[in-house]
Amino acid sequence: MPSSEIRILSVGTALPGEPVDTAMLAKAFRMDALWQQWVDTFIETRTRHLATDLGTGEQYCSLADLATSAAERALAASGTSVDDIDLVVMGTAMPDMLMPATVNVVADRLGVNNVPTYQLQSGCSGAVQAIELAHDLLSTGRYRTALVIGGEVTAKHFDLKRDLRALPPGQLVNLVLFGDGAGAAVLSRDADSGAAAIRRVFTRLTGLGRESGQSLEWYGAADRGGERNPASENYKMIEDSVPGMAVEILEELLDDLGWKRADIDYLLPPQLSGRMTPRIVERLAVPGAEEVSVVDVTGNTGNSLPFLQLEKAFAEMAPGERGLCVAVESSKWIKAGLVFERI
Amino acid sequence: MPSSEIRILSVGTALPGEPVDTAMLAKAFRMDALWQQWVDTFIETRTRHLATDLGTGEQYCSLADLATSAAERALAASGTSVDDIDLVVMGTAMPDMLMPATVNVVADRLGVNNVPTYQLQSGCSGAVQAIELAHDLLSTGRYRTALVIGGEVTAKHFDLKRDLRALPPGQLVNLVLFGDGAGAAVLSRDADSGAAAIRRVFTRLTGLGRESGQSLEWYGAADRGGERNPASENYKMIEDSVPGMAVEILEELLDDLGWKRADIDYLLPPQLSGRMTPRIVERLAVPGAEEVSVVDVTGNTGNSLPFLQLEKAFAEMAPGERGLCVAVESSKWIKAGLVFERI
Repeated sequence: MPSSEIRILSVGTALPGEPVDTAMLAKAFRMDALWQQWVDTFIETRTRHLATDLGTGEQYCSLADLATSAAERALAASGTSVDDIDLVVMGTAMPDMLMPATVNVVADRLGVNNVPTYQLQSGCSGAVQAIELAHDLLSTGRYRTALVIGGEVTAKHFDLKRDLRALPPGQLVNLVLFGDGAGAAVLSRDADSGAAAIRRVFTRLTGLGRESGQSLEWYGAADRGGERNPASENYKMIEDSVPGMAVEILEELLDDLGWKRADIDYLLPPQLSGRMTPRIVERLAVPGAEEVSVVDVTGNTGNSLPFLQLEKAFAEMAPGERGLCVAVESSKWIKAGLVFERI
Repeated sequence: MPSSEIRILSVGTALPGEPVDTAMLAKAFRMDALWQQWVDTFIETRTRHLATDLGTGEQYCSLADLATSAAERALAASGTSVDDIDLVVMGTAMPDMLMPATVNVVADRLGVNNVPTYQLQSGCSGAVQAIELAHDLLSTGRYRTALVIGGEVTAKHFDLKRDLRALPPGQLVNLVLFGDGAGAAVLSRDADSGAAAIRRVFTRLTGLGRESGQSLEWYGAADRGGERNPASENYKMIEDSVPGMAVEILEELLDDLGWKRADIDYLLPPQLSGRMTPRIVERLAVPGAEEVSVVDVTGNTGNSLPFLQLEKAFAEMAPGERGLCVAVESSKWIKAGLVFERI
């Protein structure tokens, strides 16, 4: 059915600066060796990339900068030109500003104009939501080629001036879990081109009556002095909930396609932390598939993660091979899944 | 063609508290009679509704509160139940938090679950973008009934403690132009039900190389003390650009449908201010149509405006009558238009 055969032509990503290891973070935060050990043991994320200069505390690049670079790389690799793009969808939890939307700043820099642009406000499921939205809109026949973008820059919440020893673990963990980055993909409904066909994609809110696992505030001019907790994470709840949800997503995708675990060659699991991801992979139990993870070196980069994983998978996949990506948004519990097949 | 015949079943809206007139604003801001006169002459927005208590400075309701009320009213008027909703799309420039997305908080309160939810980060075109997105997704056949929501709560930027006499006009104008509110609509692809059929809807970024007309910052934990201008508006640029863009949108919609100005019975123009809107209406030159405006009593409520206008139009329209809505997003210049016909 040509209307549902949507292709991912290419993927591009961008990470700011050099990798920042835990020792560098500990130095910037004036934390001791014990803290480093805590990070190494309970998080196991070895490095991350940051848009904040740890020496000066200055933000040296924006989400629009990273997203533009990622999009340029995806466009170059796709063989399509900017003029072919007739739809742009971006997902992020942390836009540069509320207005203009970052997607429109990126479109402007790329030279994309006269097309609909959508920016989804979303946590870790946003990249799959953006891919799903582009997939569905391409399948209407109204559009031919979509640019999909995801990314995060944590700089506004990355406070080097704080005394971390006073922070409760739920806030402290945020400073080591996350990293900055962006990714992009070019999607098309042209049947005669494409690196991978999307075989299934879905996202679904499943938070009814369930407590929020994560929250992120923003402040305006009137409440900057507020004492509300700017960012918190119920890490225990996430640790308890995500593995089971990931299994449900995997099994739903396979059931839907009439496939078995053995049909999957590449597994792109949720990228919570260097420690959590291997546990999720174990629960997913797809022993024949190669795991495609990046979190131990990039940190949790939110909406850029599936692009980083897709880029890595595409570099290895042979025609006919199949990949399955699982993402979970824990601020209000969104299930997200994507299955693709190399053409 | 059934796939493109999408119906708006109902509309619901919610505004916080009692109308706040300019004299009440002047008192809260310790401004004099001259300022009141300036507002009356250059803005001509008589009242607005605010989620902030002018006496105490406290925010007494959230965007999720207003959006839930609006959605409940739309659902009750639609004759559909919460269980029929299989898609939720929300547009806002000012979500309550970055995570969880407000759309998911609203879904939780309504009892909506196991469906995709999308929250668009957008300025004044966001309501039409949300309607367009729901329209396109319904037309794929994957969904039957969508809840569409739009709204704004300005409380985080509504700073009663500031000395307004020190503010440049580009910032001062923000404090009197805007108001708080939310709206919702239930859309369906069932052919045998519905208050109005959508005849055309489009949104399109047209900002290539054009300066931003409006900007809105957010602050995180690390940059709350920043001196960046939190909200600014190039009112002159907006005043110059919007009328011409509104005419282009109107003419494109009519050309697309093969209709003439005389075919339009209700005109829903951009709601910039009590002063600007009549000027835009004059430029649009649809003398046979009844103007449906709310801005002089609600202020510019951003993503809730088209719902407030639709609700007002639906209360008057007879079967066969046609309405045309024009919206312009000026932070990066998005054109948005919607044509509907009472069934």
